[in-house]
Amino acid sequence: MSSDQAGKNMIVLMDTGSSRDQLEAVMERLVSSGFQARMMRGAGRFVIGASGDGEAVPSPDLEGMPGVIGVIPATRPYKLVSREAGGGNSVVEAGGVEIGGCRIVIMAGPCAVETPEQMHAAARAVSLAGAKILRGGAFKPRTSPYSFQGLEEEGLKLLTGAAREYGLATVTEVVDLPSLDIALKYVDMVQIGARNMQNFRLLQAVGRAGRPVLLKRGLSATVEEWLMAAEYIASEGNAGIVLCERGIRTFETSTRNTLDLSAVPLVKGLSHLPVVVDPSHATGMRGLVGPMSLAAVAAGADGLLIEVHPDPRKALCDGPQSLSPEEFQKVAVELRAVAVAVGRAA
Amino acid sequence: MSSDQAGKNMIVLMDTGSSRDQLEAVMERLVSSGFQARMMRGAGRFVIGASGDGEAVPSPDLEGMPGVIGVIPATRPYKLVSREAGGGNSVVEAGGVEIGGCRIVIMAGPCAVETPEQMHAAARAVSLAGAKILRGGAFKPRTSPYSFQGLEEEGLKLLTGAAREYGLATVTEVVDLPSLDIALKYVDMVQIGARNMQNFRLLQAVGRAGRPVLLKRGLSATVEEWLMAAEYIASEGNAGIVLCERGIRTFETSTRNTLDLSAVPLVKGLSHLPVVVDPSHATGMRGLVGPMSLAAVAAGADGLLIEVHPDPRKALCDGPQSLSPEEFQKVAVELRAVAVAVGRAA
Amino acid sequence: MSSDQAGKNMIVLMDTGSSRDQLEAVMERLVSSGFQARMMRGAGRFVIGASGDGEAVPSPDLEGMPGVIGVIPATRPYKLVSREAGGGNSVVEAGGVEIGGCRIVIMAGPCAVETPEQMHAAARAVSLAGAKILRGGAFKPRTSPYSFQGLEEEGLKLLTGAAREYGLATVTEVVDLPSLDIALKYVDMVQIGARNMQNFRLLQAVGRAGRPVLLKRGLSATVEEWLMAAEYIASEGNAGIVLCERGIRTFETSTRNTLDLSAVPLVKGLSHLPVVVDPSHATGMRGLVGPMSLAAVAAGADGLLIEVHPDPRKALCDGPQSLSPEEFQKVAVELRAVAVAVGRAA
Amino acid sequence: MSSDQAGKNMIVLMDTGSSRDQLEAVMERLVSSGFQARMMRGAGRFVIGASGDGEAVPSPDLEGMPGVIGVIPATRPYKLVSREAGGGNSVVEAGGVEIGGCRIVIMAGPCAVETPEQMHAAARAVSLAGAKILRGGAFKPRTSPYSFQGLEEEGLKLLTGAAREYGLATVTEVVDLPSLDIALKYVDMVQIGARNMQNFRLLQAVGRAGRPVLLKRGLSATVEEWLMAAEYIASEGNAGIVLCERGIRTFETSTRNTLDLSAVPLVKGLSHLPVVVDPSHATGMRGLVGPMSLAAVAAGADGLLIEVHPDPRKALCDGPQSLSPEEFQKVAVELRAVAVAVGRAA
Repeated sequence: MSSDQAGKNMIVLMDTGSSRDQLEAVMERLVSSGFQARMMRGAGRFVIGASGDGEAVPSPDLEGMPGVIGVIPATRPYKLVSREAGGGNSVVEAGGVEIGGCRIVIMAGPCAVETPEQMHAAARAVSLAGAKILRGGAFKPRTSPYSFQGLEEEGLKLLTGAAREYGLATVTEVVDLPSLDIALKYVDMVQIGARNMQNFRLLQAVGRAGRPVLLKRGLSATVEEWLMAAEYIASEGNAGIVLCERGIRTFETSTRNTLDLSAVPLVKGLSHLPVVVDPSHATGMRGLVGPMSLAAVAAGADGLLIEVHPDPRKALCDGPQSLSPEEFQKVAVELRAVAVAVGRAA
Repeated sequence: MSSDQAGKNMIVLMDTGSSRDQLEAVMERLVSSGFQARMMRGAGRFVIGASGDGEAVPSPDLEGMPGVIGVIPATRPYKLVSREAGGGNSVVEAGGVEIGGCRIVIMAGPCAVETPEQMHAAARAVSLAGAKILRGGAFKPRTSPYSFQGLEEEGLKLLTGAAREYGLATVTEVVDLPSLDIALKYVDMVQIGARNMQNFRLLQAVGRAGRPVLLKRGLSATVEEWLMAAEYIASEGNAGIVLCERGIRTFETSTRNTLDLSAVPLVKGLSHLPVVVDPSHATGMRGLVGPMSLAAVAAGADGLLIEVHPDPRKALCDGPQSLSPEEFQKVAVELRAVAVAVGRAA
Repeated sequence: MSSDQAGKNMIVLMDTGSSRDQLEAVMERLVSSGFQARMMRGAGRFVIGASGDGEAVPSPDLEGMPGVIGVIPATRPYKLVSREAGGGNSVVEAGGVEIGGCRIVIMAGPCAVETPEQMHAAARAVSLAGAKILRGGAFKPRTSPYSFQGLEEEGLKLLTGAAREYGLATVTEVVDLPSLDIALKYVDMVQIGARNMQNFRLLQAVGRAGRPVLLKRGLSATVEEWLMAAEYIASEGNAGIVLCERGIRTFETSTRNTLDLSAVPLVKGLSHLPVVVDPSHATGMRGLVGPMSLAAVAAGADGLLIEVHPDPRKALCDGPQSLSPEEFQKVAVELRAVAVAVGRAA
Repeated sequence: MSSDQAGKNMIVLMDTGSSRDQLEAVMERLVSSGFQARMMRGAGRFVIGASGDGEAVPSPDLEGMPGVIGVIPATRPYKLVSREAGGGNSVVEAGGVEIGGCRIVIMAGPCAVETPEQMHAAARAVSLAGAKILRGGAFKPRTSPYSFQGLEEEGLKLLTGAAREYGLATVTEVVDLPSLDIALKYVDMVQIGARNMQNFRLLQAVGRAGRPVLLKRGLSATVEEWLMAAEYIASEGNAGIVLCERGIRTFETSTRNTLDLSAVPLVKGLSHLPVVVDPSHATGMRGLVGPMSLAAVAAGADGLLIEVHPDPRKALCDGPQSLSPEEFQKVAVELRAVAVAVGRAA
């Protein structure tokens, strides 16, 4: 559990019942020795990550301090979110829904919130098929300034209204501090989109907000950069992080992106965080969403994020990759069989 | 089934019982009108692909010719291997094993044939776990001229000897015309590796050889280029083609390649050919082979190509991605459950 | 200059002497017809970009309005920054330095502002070699929360103090609204880094700020996405945009990124904006900065952004790609010869 | 020049006047100690590369052998083509033209040989503009089996006939052993195309042929793989290798490929071989060929490979990227100025 002399990078495991004074004493000891130290509490663990090139702190010194369970040399640049931080798989709770446990969690809904009718139809459809979390974008980061940018706060009211009616939790994307402030008033989980995965100030802000976060992988982010982005959130104390693989950008253009499904078992080996998959953005093609949803579950994903629209042909964004309620229902049924085959429930 | 006037690219469906004279009459009609025409027979279909910018041939003219069932305008540059060529899914038979049918086919064995002991242990292990085809490389295309280049014909004797003992069919990679000539004396199926996917002369030679072919996708080949490579084989008359997705080269280096699993359902929609997946080369990591094998089957793959070595630590090549017999056995069992969940057998 | 009936995307060229009333009348006409309309003024042009699927406005109607010079159907999703918006090459002025004119502009300095001594030595060195703009990071978007994050406002004081002493203009990166507010108090030009190229809210904020902007291309941004990011800035009225190619992410890892130099003449054909090149981040290797600087000028770049540190071995960030003052001096001399060879000055 | 004990990888520098007996004694000593040994002679050097995990040979033993000048531990997997193999820059002579010396060499001509008139017009145009080598494809590796595949031997007769008239050397692509055999009867230099860069049997065959080789980089080949492909050629004794950067495959599709110009100075640092650039295939756009030609020379390229067609609109392949004689003449003039600016001649 420790080496004689703690290295330049380490993870300090604290007792989950440690007092504030005990925590502060450990942090102070690290900082006074020239370390950067960051703390994360939640999901069944209480961890301090330290990094730096100050003088090394002898492990026994740290291990003898009250509240300290052990000191581990960190082999990766991420510490708080690493598998080494112990405690088994994290289970993140959002609006009463557990992500990362035995049950596969389906988050579904339209790309953009458009109308009350659309949201009610969507909520009804996804709820009937077994989804537990309703998604819907109100702040849309669009490539063009001339494109529809979302209904903003009005959209969140429609999202939560529809979700409440069908007992669903909610998730929506935030794009800056003002949109985060508004989202925190309405939704159970906030999403950081692919384009903002390295918007470090936004990551720190959602870290401080303490609300569960769905962190999408950037279009060309390596697995390590993705986990470092999660470390930014965790380093503000927020342990409620769910990672979302949504396809990377490669030379292949016959699908919208290239779904990097191998990243799912890879990341689950490197980190204790839950991982879900977004087959809709990854493929950009309705006909591939079903097969890739099944594949994601077979590969070990903890959940799915699927675009469902009551009438995909009329969707204001991403229609070609949105499932109709009937298509979604079919996928959800097939999913259940695969989940059982790999020892999960859905 | 036809337009009034056949376009510049077309697929002519022939009756499978057409005579040679009937075929030649159709080919001649096409060529004399300025078309390039190619014919493929097998896997339950008899098709002519035509392409060119000669004068258009009126469809009725073609449709009225003896043996012609129908004329379809081709919407893609590949014709013989396209889904449009009709006849449902192709089932390719190699050494008595059917690939593309209901049953998931596992091809397994070591990267390189090394010794009789190694091959017998490998054959025994993969056979026990339910694999039907034994793989083993005797002609190795290595990045360095200083690396082990394979046992050549001697290796093929070891491969087939071990396979016969356990009732397995065989597949091995060929790298040029001489190695193809040798391989044809021994194996049931020849493999075109990723680096030779656009070695068009080799593709034509395996096309003429008529033996079933396992065609790996090139490291940076688009789906369309991959299907065009298959078209090269088919255009020499050989319909026994099995496509193999083995990962593409992207910016992500935490896995050896990026397994493009979405290509499986995509290609099955575009082509009638069977598609298998090689999770060993795709990921390069033993621990990811299992999850990605399950994911491949869930995504609709018709089979798997898995590296198995009796003692991976001593393998002359690709040890880190080879499964031990015990690991392979475990994957094979899990695979069966997923296959059943998606309506297949394994 | 116009079609009978303006299409769904158009560029309205206004007289640079148009009154506010004339402008508003045109904008209102567009918006009332269901268009999104955006205006940009500066760099010798006064343009309105319009996009939408409302009813088409007959061109003659628009062309007859006071202040309107012409109406052009837009063939690309970007309008204000497109070459079609007329007026020849933009020349952007930052702190008295013209970018986009005949003279190649060199922006140089350290990755991060560290100490007064470092900044003075850097300013002296780059000034002596002929650079006109001093760069230095005070807000650092670092991959790891444990890395040095910059001196913030204190750093900007050091940057501007050193620049003033040697008559240099200044540029620094901003990462969010607070850092932008601080930067506007000190520097002549603000930089949007690669990771924030699609942080649309930040783009809009620098658009509104009206200060010249150095817009780096995102790690995996297409040329079109890059120009759309520029359109976001322009659409808030700010015409002072300089594009910076800094390498894209590819499979090749022997250089830090792959410098996409073809993008320079390509973008100059598509847009009126000046383009500069950052060979330091692109290659990540000191020894390649010189050759690629020369190549950039030969390819048509309007300037260079080069990392120079008084003592690269001690740099807090990006030391391996920073030039020493002596190395930089040598590159600057060679650059002059190439600039002259292609009809420019440096 | 040597370590006490030669490592597992080494380069043995031989006196260029060594006798066959001396050479064989050294090779035997290496092989009997368990090494793979490969020899290359030419371009002013005589080198043996050795690799293996046999028992180490003490350097003094080797260094004392007749003919041996020195023994160097090899730090890279390529040895014969590495910069460490000494002897300064290689100059490769093809048909009397020196590539790799002070003078920039231009190789130009059409993608495919089509007619006698076309070839004479092409030869005249490129000769007038100062090109020294005429290119023209007679064996075309086309993505589609339905595309024009080249005039084969007849084409080579047209190529050499036209070249002779204008005093030009010749280069053509070979795609397999039969086409190599034919090409050796006609041309001064054979080209290995991007798709065949890892067709190791073909590399070995051109190595044995002894004719100068133009080795194009593969579409997704790393710099190291490209140099290993050159090592395959060199390891058969052929030192007449010229590397050609022709763009790599990335996510960016606004150009045909992404010209990796940084690879030019990088490779020239790693290897003694000359490097030329093909801006035609790299960009796929006529308008970018000029700027990227200038950039290539500024970056340190030893030559250029440019597609020129008497009438690009009628070209059977690659028309959009071919220059007309007038456009080519203009580029050649501009090139001269840049060459002089970087201390070269053209």
